[in-house]
Amino acid sequence: MARRYRRPDDDLRRISDTDVPVASAAMSSPTVDDRLRALGLELPGPHPPHDPLDAVVVHGGVARTSGQLPRDHDGVLVHPGRLGGGVSVAQGAEAARWCALNALSVLRAELGSLDRIERVLTVLGFVACAPEFDAQPAVVDGASRLLADVFGDAGRHSRSAIGVAALPRGGAVEIEVAVALRA
Amino acid sequence: MARRYRRPDDDLRRISDTDVPVASAAMSSPTVDDRLRALGLELPGPHPPHDPLDAVVVHGGVARTSGQLPRDHDGVLVHPGRLGGGVSVAQGAEAARWCALNALSVLRAELGSLDRIERVLTVLGFVACAPEFDAQPAVVDGASRLLADVFGDAGRHSRSAIGVAALPRGGAVEIEVAVALRA
Amino acid sequence: MARRYRRPDDDLRRISDTDVPVASAAMSSPTVDDRLRALGLELPGPHPPHDPLDAVVVHGGVARTSGQLPRDHDGVLVHPGRLGGGVSVAQGAEAARWCALNALSVLRAELGSLDRIERVLTVLGFVACAPEFDAQPAVVDGASRLLADVFGDAGRHSRSAIGVAALPRGGAVEIEVAVALRA
Repeated sequence: MARRYRRPDDDLRRISDTDVPVASAAMSSPTVDDRLRALGLELPGPHPPHDPLDAVVVHGGVARTSGQLPRDHDGVLVHPGRLGGGVSVAQGAEAARWCALNALSVLRAELGSLDRIERVLTVLGFVACAPEFDAQPAVVDGASRLLADVFGDAGRHSRSAIGVAALPRGGAVEIEVAVALRA
Repeated sequence: MARRYRRPDDDLRRISDTDVPVASAAMSSPTVDDRLRALGLELPGPHPPHDPLDAVVVHGGVARTSGQLPRDHDGVLVHPGRLGGGVSVAQGAEAARWCALNALSVLRAELGSLDRIERVLTVLGFVACAPEFDAQPAVVDGASRLLADVFGDAGRHSRSAIGVAALPRGGAVEIEVAVALRA
Repeated sequence: MARRYRRPDDDLRRISDTDVPVASAAMSSPTVDDRLRALGLELPGPHPPHDPLDAVVVHGGVARTSGQLPRDHDGVLVHPGRLGGGVSVAQGAEAARWCALNALSVLRAELGSLDRIERVLTVLGFVACAPEFDAQPAVVDGASRLLADVFGDAGRHSRSAIGVAALPRGGAVEIEVAVALRA
């Protein structure tokens, strides 16, 4: 431990899924929206939940999202199904990445600006899977890496990755994100 | 977003499962216990967990319950089994409603009074289900609607609804609730 | 409720899995490390997660671990598999105990000293199991009792115990622990 906030730029670059030089984007971009643009990312939605649910609840300097499904810009689930039963690890990781994009989308809508986020705190990741599937971390990494790409060292977080029987609407992945807000 | 605390009374009425005029009850009743009575609700238990567990832990102005099973007044599980395997969505929602009643019961026992609750923050809902079941939200809504019926806009919350392999004692639903306390 | 922090020494002794007189160890030992020694416990690892994850995140006076698998001193999973499918309840409880030991290990590495912990707050416990398995609490008790053995009354906590389809690397148990830190 004692490694928080101290990942070298090389590591940041290594975990990036894109060809964009992440480290320089993270350093020169003044806003998170600029960084999203530099990474070629456009947030979907926001796709709010039904009543009486809130997509995001803010309390005590922490914002926590409701569970986010991998919805695309039209609200359609990306790679529905389950891991170890038709959905590949790469597809699952892409679904997890969409979950994280949806989390950022509802956070931006609630907070007004993603620049209010001081750091990511935790990700709780659920993967719909067959009983013999054991690569939940590789799937949820799709969300974790997206958060690190966008926020740099402030995107590091604690996480649990859990394989579950089934998720709403047949989604392959669902994640909940908690972030700390600037004072 | 930006819709928190702003659901119109019509919405509140719409999601109510009872014939009681919820909005007026929420406005004219001075205490949460009065509101429970107006809604015809009697809290079960409290059914405390075994050592070394606490039913409720309070820290930093937040009270969080242990996972609550759908126990009735006698402690017997309501609609045990799993969704997509004998338990219907309506029965699952009723079980989830009992989970929420048990959460309120242990909160009242720990806090002394439910009037200390400023708002509901989050619900983490687990539904025991078959792999092809995909209506977890409709099941956990039984708990979410109960909280909205009792607390009005302060009952809105973030939520994840997850389908799992199995729950303690064969329960169909288990929920964890976190609430913010008045300063 | 209202029983927090008030379990008599007799109860503490009852839940101990060891022959060590826990109550006296808890009272006479000045540090948590002394208590671990008195209980004959040696923490494994720490086994840190891969980037961009942190084993522990501290915010607002609370430290929360990433999900901990039951790794032994060499990092090998203890009793892999699933409950109701080859792993017994006793083996599952032993695995859960190792999860808790790993949680303490990463907390000590992050915090510098376990004496900074004021109390345990919550445990979120996931048990890989067959659909008909219903003794998740007895499994996760392996972690809960370890925390009570080490911290005494300050080891009491709220908890959810959930049966899931599968866990990373085929682990039988995964737990997440949140603790409050001294001011």
